[in-house]
Amino acid sequence: MTEIDRMLAANQQWLAEFPGDLPVAPARGVAVVACMDSRMPLFGMLGLAVGDAHVIRNAGGVVTEDTLRSLAISQHLLGTRAVVLVHHTDCGLNKATDVEFADLVERSTGHRPPFPARAFADVDADVRESMAAVRSAPYLLSTEVRGTVYDVATGLLREVV
Amino acid sequence: MTEIDRMLAANQQWLAEFPGDLPVAPARGVAVVACMDSRMPLFGMLGLAVGDAHVIRNAGGVVTEDTLRSLAISQHLLGTRAVVLVHHTDCGLNKATDVEFADLVERSTGHRPPFPARAFADVDADVRESMAAVRSAPYLLSTEVRGTVYDVATGLLREVV
Repeated sequence: MTEIDRMLAANQQWLAEFPGDLPVAPARGVAVVACMDSRMPLFGMLGLAVGDAHVIRNAGGVVTEDTLRSLAISQHLLGTRAVVLVHHTDCGLNKATDVEFADLVERSTGHRPPFPARAFADVDADVRESMAAVRSAPYLLSTEVRGTVYDVATGLLREVV
Repeated sequence: MTEIDRMLAANQQWLAEFPGDLPVAPARGVAVVACMDSRMPLFGMLGLAVGDAHVIRNAGGVVTEDTLRSLAISQHLLGTRAVVLVHHTDCGLNKATDVEFADLVERSTGHRPPFPARAFADVDADVRESMAAVRSAPYLLSTEVRGTVYDVATGLLREVV
């Protein structure tokens, strides 16, 4: 039995907690953009109920073209207007450079990845850059864009102002 | 008080449940790639504990360049090898075409988005296409790639074979 088999089997337990059919549009009108880090259970961390908010996640929680695509769909098709970014301490992308990452992948597989890792040196600066990228997208409808850093050692979420 | 203010305040409740400092590498060696839909609490649905798995999410749960970037970082820097895709029924991207979406954005903002929405007509076919995209990336190290569809009306997760 693989870990994926165990995850599929765990769906049986979920059925006892399943809250029933809910509308497709997020009830609280918010899209969360966060890092993929395994230590960030966003529903718990932000007090979200099922159906409350869109959750967009990638390596670093950085704003890429795909993040903007997801936000455009979230806002234009499903009515969200607020965006909250969640980066965190002890991030893998804060420990290597784009060149070191590409070298590592090439050594392991013989293939250089056709994209940068999007590593960063300063998490607060990266949050500010991500907020600016959302605010400056002319095809979005955002009314509120805020950024935070989650401390994985303490559980505290700190707003970046 | 905005919805984002309420989410930041909810972090105080989270501190009572916070499980403490955990390693950055996911304990179960799995990356989940899922849609951003607000009705999919992946930790509950898949029986995940904090620290178990990376969670990558975008509109549709489709495999874009950014998904592949996130998976490359998950595998090469943080040791995951298995990938499970989670698409779902009643998806916003299953209800419009790329052209309809671009037209809608242009009518609302005066700007046509510089990317396709990545709409799809058949969710099972989209899961298979996403699995193929992960399997064919030569710079990845995946050992197991599986795909599922979550039924938002019943809570059931069905594997696509």
